[in-house]
Amino acid sequence: MADVESTTACQPLSLTNARELLDSVDAFLLDCDGVIWKGDTLIDGVPETLEMLRSKGKKLVFVTNNSMKSRKQYAHKFQSLGIPVTEEEIFSSSFAAAMYLKVNEFPPQKNVYVIGGEGILEELKLAGFTGHGGPEDGAKTVQLKANTLFEHDKNVGAVVVGIDPNLNYYKLQYATLCIRENPGCIFIATNRDATGNMTDLQEWPGAGCMVAAVCGATEKEPIVVGKPSTFLMDFLQKKYNIPTSRMCMVGDRLDTDILFGQNAGCRTLLVLSGVTSQSTLQDPSNRIQPQIYTNQISDIFDLLKS
Amino acid sequence: MADVESTTACQPLSLTNARELLDSVDAFLLDCDGVIWKGDTLIDGVPETLEMLRSKGKKLVFVTNNSMKSRKQYAHKFQSLGIPVTEEEIFSSSFAAAMYLKVNEFPPQKNVYVIGGEGILEELKLAGFTGHGGPEDGAKTVQLKANTLFEHDKNVGAVVVGIDPNLNYYKLQYATLCIRENPGCIFIATNRDATGNMTDLQEWPGAGCMVAAVCGATEKEPIVVGKPSTFLMDFLQKKYNIPTSRMCMVGDRLDTDILFGQNAGCRTLLVLSGVTSQSTLQDPSNRIQPQIYTNQISDIFDLLKS
Repeated sequence: MADVESTTACQPLSLTNARELLDSVDAFLLDCDGVIWKGDTLIDGVPETLEMLRSKGKKLVFVTNNSMKSRKQYAHKFQSLGIPVTEEEIFSSSFAAAMYLKVNEFPPQKNVYVIGGEGILEELKLAGFTGHGGPEDGAKTVQLKANTLFEHDKNVGAVVVGIDPNLNYYKLQYATLCIRENPGCIFIATNRDATGNMTDLQEWPGAGCMVAAVCGATEKEPIVVGKPSTFLMDFLQKKYNIPTSRMCMVGDRLDTDILFGQNAGCRTLLVLSGVTSQSTLQDPSNRIQPQIYTNQISDIFDLLKS
Repeated sequence: MADVESTTACQPLSLTNARELLDSVDAFLLDCDGVIWKGDTLIDGVPETLEMLRSKGKKLVFVTNNSMKSRKQYAHKFQSLGIPVTEEEIFSSSFAAAMYLKVNEFPPQKNVYVIGGEGILEELKLAGFTGHGGPEDGAKTVQLKANTLFEHDKNVGAVVVGIDPNLNYYKLQYATLCIRENPGCIFIATNRDATGNMTDLQEWPGAGCMVAAVCGATEKEPIVVGKPSTFLMDFLQKKYNIPTSRMCMVGDRLDTDILFGQNAGCRTLLVLSGVTSQSTLQDPSNRIQPQIYTNQISDIFDLLKS
């Protein structure tokens, strides 16, 4: 008798598996960039799809690695795009960084140096921590002259690095000195996405670029709190009390979204509306396979609306 | 009978091994940052030491990973510090990048995009190539707005990345687009030093930081042309016709200078006047051992002057 091997090949979304997915899932975890929007432009059919999922009693949770904004700022963005989403439904990597410090009892009298956007500083503040750096250091320059000593805050106990379109040598030296010279200083990466749809027409270097730069200068590896790390899953489970097997992660990146879903034991759905093309998905070198893939999230709506 | 294992432990410089070294070596390959100078400040005793080595008939070759300057600019720097060194005695990683393209028959009608200093652009020009980027892109900014397309030169066939104190998101996106989207575009790193003595008082992020940033965004690994790669050794050997066993590499970094010397089959001398401390050298986790170490290069002069 021949061995029977159950293969779980990645399937395109169909009426059959879309129905099965909806029946077996209580919560959809949705990535934002490349799933909901590209830059500030909404992807076609998103509002009606989210509305349909809500109308069927599904919980919606937005899990984004983009740390530029805080949860509050993301809620505003959703609202400005005409999608009703509350702050509590958003789990951003900026929030994850602050929660990592809280859970690990980071001393509130210590400071946090930030390479990244305002969102990280805002989440740190909400969690009771004092951050500096970020946008305010974006215009600072360095003097490479004799007898000039670049001073840094010896009270920095953690450096958080996220995507930063205002990266410069000042910030790189600042973060490097904190990590190399402040005893016990921890190095947190919001995420390591190589690129992201920072605008609707193009991909741009993501947090993976800034994080790698700091790794390159410090020769240290960071603690990653965003996807594919499942650090946020504890918060999600406490809040919604849904087993991960009844959650579906929907995302456009294999190495963050789909891997996160797999790591957490969720169902996985890849959409091709972001950084992953069908040829990348089906390339023999790709070892991360979602359970289902489709062009864009509204395909669920189109299949099930009737 | 017990096995006898010949150990080649790293020895401190002494009168005995200094004499033996001079007797067995015809050329000294000298790193610059941390050996000759720190930033723009000469390290004590360098001029008399170099003079003594020359007076004993030793060839001097300056092999620097710092790509900020061209060979011509380095010769000026030496002269301004009162040390007579000619352009031909200098092998910088900026020169190495240009030579790599030449040796590999890079088409001169293609362009080269540069993250790094003027030195790289100058060496490219001397070798007959057209480079752009570098300092001129240091003040450029990006617009992360809808419908804005970041345009890049589709004729760029190589990206060269070296240390760049004017790194910004514009350059990172430019280099990333060339490497990801221009078919066959090659990615060259002048070197991957984590840090360097960009000023006399401090270490600063080195080319390893900028190179890692580009790796992080492109998910590609570069061709490294500076130390510890022995790419330049062919040029050195053709020029001086000295076997590598009769060369001594003198440097302050284990993972570039000393490894380069070992890779090439040279004698190796570590000086503690740069980025490596005695405790780092002797830490059990350090696996790169020079043959001899000493505080600074002038210790040779002090031992042998009498």
